[in-house]
Amino acid sequence: MEDRGVDVELALRELSKLVIEVPSWGFSNSGTRFYSFGQKGDATDFFQRVDDCEQVWKYTGNGRDICMHIPWDECDFKAARQYVEGKKMAFGTLNTNLFQDNDFALGTLANSERRIREKTIAKLIHCLDVVKAVGAKSINVWTIDGSNIPGQNDFRQRRKWMLESLAEGYRHIGDDDISYNIEYKLFEPSFYHNEIADWGTALYYARKLGDKAKVTVDLGHHAFGTNVAQIVSMLIDEGKLGAFHLNDNNCGDDDLIPGTINPFRLFAIESEMVAGLLDPETEEVTRKVRQGIDTSFCIEPRVEAMILSVVNLQIAYAKALLVNRTELKKRQMDNDVLGANQCLMDAYNTDVTPLLTEWRARQGIEGDPYTSYISSEYCKKRKDRA
Amino acid sequence: MEDRGVDVELALRELSKLVIEVPSWGFSNSGTRFYSFGQKGDATDFFQRVDDCEQVWKYTGNGRDICMHIPWDECDFKAARQYVEGKKMAFGTLNTNLFQDNDFALGTLANSERRIREKTIAKLIHCLDVVKAVGAKSINVWTIDGSNIPGQNDFRQRRKWMLESLAEGYRHIGDDDISYNIEYKLFEPSFYHNEIADWGTALYYARKLGDKAKVTVDLGHHAFGTNVAQIVSMLIDEGKLGAFHLNDNNCGDDDLIPGTINPFRLFAIESEMVAGLLDPETEEVTRKVRQGIDTSFCIEPRVEAMILSVVNLQIAYAKALLVNRTELKKRQMDNDVLGANQCLMDAYNTDVTPLLTEWRARQGIEGDPYTSYISSEYCKKRKDRA
Amino acid sequence: MEDRGVDVELALRELSKLVIEVPSWGFSNSGTRFYSFGQKGDATDFFQRVDDCEQVWKYTGNGRDICMHIPWDECDFKAARQYVEGKKMAFGTLNTNLFQDNDFALGTLANSERRIREKTIAKLIHCLDVVKAVGAKSINVWTIDGSNIPGQNDFRQRRKWMLESLAEGYRHIGDDDISYNIEYKLFEPSFYHNEIADWGTALYYARKLGDKAKVTVDLGHHAFGTNVAQIVSMLIDEGKLGAFHLNDNNCGDDDLIPGTINPFRLFAIESEMVAGLLDPETEEVTRKVRQGIDTSFCIEPRVEAMILSVVNLQIAYAKALLVNRTELKKRQMDNDVLGANQCLMDAYNTDVTPLLTEWRARQGIEGDPYTSYISSEYCKKRKDRA
Amino acid sequence: MEDRGVDVELALRELSKLVIEVPSWGFSNSGTRFYSFGQKGDATDFFQRVDDCEQVWKYTGNGRDICMHIPWDECDFKAARQYVEGKKMAFGTLNTNLFQDNDFALGTLANSERRIREKTIAKLIHCLDVVKAVGAKSINVWTIDGSNIPGQNDFRQRRKWMLESLAEGYRHIGDDDISYNIEYKLFEPSFYHNEIADWGTALYYARKLGDKAKVTVDLGHHAFGTNVAQIVSMLIDEGKLGAFHLNDNNCGDDDLIPGTINPFRLFAIESEMVAGLLDPETEEVTRKVRQGIDTSFCIEPRVEAMILSVVNLQIAYAKALLVNRTELKKRQMDNDVLGANQCLMDAYNTDVTPLLTEWRARQGIEGDPYTSYISSEYCKKRKDRA
Repeated sequence: MEDRGVDVELALRELSKLVIEVPSWGFSNSGTRFYSFGQKGDATDFFQRVDDCEQVWKYTGNGRDICMHIPWDECDFKAARQYVEGKKMAFGTLNTNLFQDNDFALGTLANSERRIREKTIAKLIHCLDVVKAVGAKSINVWTIDGSNIPGQNDFRQRRKWMLESLAEGYRHIGDDDISYNIEYKLFEPSFYHNEIADWGTALYYARKLGDKAKVTVDLGHHAFGTNVAQIVSMLIDEGKLGAFHLNDNNCGDDDLIPGTINPFRLFAIESEMVAGLLDPETEEVTRKVRQGIDTSFCIEPRVEAMILSVVNLQIAYAKALLVNRTELKKRQMDNDVLGANQCLMDAYNTDVTPLLTEWRARQGIEGDPYTSYISSEYCKKRKDRA
Repeated sequence: MEDRGVDVELALRELSKLVIEVPSWGFSNSGTRFYSFGQKGDATDFFQRVDDCEQVWKYTGNGRDICMHIPWDECDFKAARQYVEGKKMAFGTLNTNLFQDNDFALGTLANSERRIREKTIAKLIHCLDVVKAVGAKSINVWTIDGSNIPGQNDFRQRRKWMLESLAEGYRHIGDDDISYNIEYKLFEPSFYHNEIADWGTALYYARKLGDKAKVTVDLGHHAFGTNVAQIVSMLIDEGKLGAFHLNDNNCGDDDLIPGTINPFRLFAIESEMVAGLLDPETEEVTRKVRQGIDTSFCIEPRVEAMILSVVNLQIAYAKALLVNRTELKKRQMDNDVLGANQCLMDAYNTDVTPLLTEWRARQGIEGDPYTSYISSEYCKKRKDRA
Repeated sequence: MEDRGVDVELALRELSKLVIEVPSWGFSNSGTRFYSFGQKGDATDFFQRVDDCEQVWKYTGNGRDICMHIPWDECDFKAARQYVEGKKMAFGTLNTNLFQDNDFALGTLANSERRIREKTIAKLIHCLDVVKAVGAKSINVWTIDGSNIPGQNDFRQRRKWMLESLAEGYRHIGDDDISYNIEYKLFEPSFYHNEIADWGTALYYARKLGDKAKVTVDLGHHAFGTNVAQIVSMLIDEGKLGAFHLNDNNCGDDDLIPGTINPFRLFAIESEMVAGLLDPETEEVTRKVRQGIDTSFCIEPRVEAMILSVVNLQIAYAKALLVNRTELKKRQMDNDVLGANQCLMDAYNTDVTPLLTEWRARQGIEGDPYTSYISSEYCKKRKDRA
Repeated sequence: MEDRGVDVELALRELSKLVIEVPSWGFSNSGTRFYSFGQKGDATDFFQRVDDCEQVWKYTGNGRDICMHIPWDECDFKAARQYVEGKKMAFGTLNTNLFQDNDFALGTLANSERRIREKTIAKLIHCLDVVKAVGAKSINVWTIDGSNIPGQNDFRQRRKWMLESLAEGYRHIGDDDISYNIEYKLFEPSFYHNEIADWGTALYYARKLGDKAKVTVDLGHHAFGTNVAQIVSMLIDEGKLGAFHLNDNNCGDDDLIPGTINPFRLFAIESEMVAGLLDPETEEVTRKVRQGIDTSFCIEPRVEAMILSVVNLQIAYAKALLVNRTELKKRQMDNDVLGANQCLMDAYNTDVTPLLTEWRARQGIEGDPYTSYISSEYCKKRKDRA
């Protein structure tokens, strides 16, 4: 590989710097609107989720940062922090569902009813307090606001309320170094319109709120045909990429294991991340981006699926690190269409298993993560976990 | 209108012949994978659903046929039949969910495990027994079978099992006059592939099964860009259109009120139905098609939303009946592109409120269905229903 | 209608203020990549296009403003101005194709090659000179820049060049009151990525350029599932909606007659325009938005199709004006989901033919525009036009 | 690889049996509806296209079969046959455009006007005569029939005409062993509906016509979210898969180099082909499927892009051959969701460059096809070809 102009040591170093956030909700029951198929040993509280997350880290070498979900991870936060830190793990982005109550059927932060907006803001502020309590560094704000039928909402009025409510939360950050990430989503659970439907809208709010407000890019939240890698490059340029929600999808927001439906898309996105890191102008903002997994395993064994999620991300990232950037840039400048593509494909077509094996070995991890885990004691015993 | 070559009396007669099936599940709690917002007075059993359905019929003049759902409407079927017939109502198509158990996580009728295929077939046969017990005329077979990740399923093997299992159910019909409708769906709850993803696959099974096997067209189960009206015309030609699941959608299978997101699409589809009815070659097969509503009101008041569903369908159907078919045919034969379109648009642009008011008056119904219902005693008292 | 709280006289007044821009290219041969089917009498120069446009205006009462296209309408601009003004017509937005030369295969304003960027900028400046020469008020900037294969372009570098080049053009406006509208497009003719793929990107450039830079919304340039009405409301809020390119489409950017595939979408969009006009905060910016038609009649008779384009827009706009805004607002504030929808649908379901007939009569136009035109002498003779 | 249960020699043997058809039109100017960018040395007649195709074969080891296009390749067919056979090359599927004349604006085989239907049938019969004259084995029938506006066509009437006309062509095959492949396409150049929009419709016609009628699957002709691999498996099961038109696409039918936008999709499709070949029940029908490339290089250097098209297909096919089918089947039968996926991914993640290098070496081809070609004399001189 060195012959191809690839800096393998750089790749190994950067793999070590890669922080992958693992979602606590990936270890518990989740399903579709039709049914939720339970699995034996599903985690039932935050502490069990941390135990599962630790396994992911142990076998893959990444995934040390666990993402809490409020309200699903409500618990004694002091104990939670001790538990996580005791394992040398850390807190990733805190995710929120602000709508778990009949009051929120017709909106949360942008509801026509002031009482409900205030009730939501209180929940949001509680979440920020949890961020501070556990020592996390970022919060992900996602709302269900939107409408199901034309005429239901006054787009413009709702936009004003949304901004006002988001600003209330933003102010609560105070001087803390917390990233306030606004997540967009094309559809679901609202079907006619979503208040924050695309990156342009999320960026609109992030700009109005201030420097700590950024954008979360969830791979499954785009319309068909959207070039997500291009959006990522734009948000890096603007210093406004806050975090990823990595997953894969086919028709909807399917929250599948990243890299299973379209592995090339994941590579193209990670390639923009690497480009951002290697450019001194954007290195700092790119380094701060939280690479979070956001999956929902309806039928897959959960810890195993999370391990594959991390492995697939490592594969994509490793390939992105193997792109000969000097050569790529040269060919792009020369308008050498196919030559530039081949430069990218040389990296994509590389089998990075040996590289990842080497990288894991340097950290004391032997064997293939998935295979090792399924033959582990933890895996066998987890089925009987109460 | 008569001046335009429209046969208004024919329209009035056909409106009376229009049978709209109303889904029992539309009157109870339903939601998205994120949350289900409950509403006061939600129906909790089949008998309450019949009561709600009766109101829809009372105020709109259609919707006399209620669709049962198994297992959600499990009850004393003899009592159910008496209750429905006592109200001069009837049973529409029976709908099935065959997968409400952890055993079905990885498939039902096409599961790799024989035990589970047999368990599903038993459920299907039970549903057919219910069809016979209540005196319904058709069953809708929809399965969740499919996969979430490439490699999970052997497409071809699963197809064989699906056919075998469907055939087991089909044989149970015996000599009864029951339509065995196969429903297709592009995605959800399976995300990588669905066993019966499109009309072509549903027709494949319906052909192999026999004359009583037909296809259910759910408006929300198509890929973007699909011309549903064209599919309807094809299935009518083949004598294989069994039923509709009418609703509306934007990005996914949103199960919204028909005619709210794209009312023209609903009109174009109903226009194919009317064309089928007016053609002696296809009149009989078209007359048997069940026009069922399939909606899921996550946030809308439920009886009200069902009334609007029926009204929107009546509007679309009335407009379709007002198309001057002689003139349309002539212009189509003349390759008069814009003239033919204008002929269709003349009907679409007509305000059919007076026609529907006249039609309802002839049946003793006064006033606008939605307005009348929301000021009714039933509506007020329903909120307190236990 | 007055009984419903609708201000009919306001509607008639606003219909008179509605300026619809008509594209010169709609009267000449256009096709798909597979073939262009010619029609007898197709306009072959700008002056013939003005003649055709005049007919549209004559029969519909709108469409007095013709949009030039450079290079297709290259001519003696002084003579062109006299010809147009002599007919009491005016110049709408000037549209540009900057890439009609093999040099532009790999990009125009953002090409890696400086020489080609400069060549494109020169073309853009020429277009602005034409704007000034004919007395138009706005220019539409659309580029083909993008890539067909991953790796071909460095997104971030190209973005910088695009901004630099656009700024060169912008500076050439000087003190003139010219709107510099940036058009976005999801795909085609570039297939992997488009430099300006969505409204968020167009707004990004418009903000960096200055107050005279705005965004053009072409209805066919969105991904499936996009709520265009919501985007329109956002751009109005930001004072950045420059113009429309109105048309209709199904799967691609089909440039069909507006309101033929999804008439409700057109209504929903125009309803946001009316909302913007009736709000004192946004009235001024909304009044300046150019409602341009952008259609490409591959098989339709061209003048007739343009007449229907204008009529369909008039229908949508008239319906939007009939919405009882006070009632709508009240219901939206009350979270009355279905009531708000019904308020909108009351207007949509209205047959506005009588209103438009009345409006046309007040301006001395008798009869249905399409029918009148096809029986006119002009229509008959046009076929023999050389 | 052998250790993983992969039969490498089988893979090498099957690579030698792989027949890739190369489209003559890929070597000449092609573009979008906006512009066609010419390239120096573009082939201007069939003989030059054969020369180019020979280079593809020479450097990749596949692509010996050239697909003619009528009318673009009209020539002295006897001379053409001698030229091709003189180079030890062969004729792949003959492709047709039946609509290159203003008469066909409103349809070809299903036109309302009998004269035009007959004119089209005559063209189709001419194409079949060419198939016989050059000794090709299959014809691809693709029509533009469809409509651009609702009401334009009577779906059902047009379907009858389409069938009648297709049958006229089919009868002309006589006793010859010619595959009559019906191609479907979601949209373009018709925008509201296409007569043959999906595989279900193509199969409908193929069934009615007879055994020699089959279906062509063009990767770019599907709606978003369609699982093409599943369709392929269905058509193999039915013995009705006639040919592929391999390419890649993002939003429309972009005709890009196969495997550049979504290489995994190509692999998944080829994996179904390999599954069909290895199953004795379907081996024969699968072996007859024509793997044709159908690309349109708007901006890419043409011979180079065709070489990459063949290489990408070889990569996908080689990976598909490396799947451990025994293990995959076992895991699928065990409902081992992730294990089955990992089995597939093991093959996909393999770098097959060494395998392809070995395979080419066995045939006397040294070096990377793309790199070798661009430094060849042919490549340099082609630019000056008149």
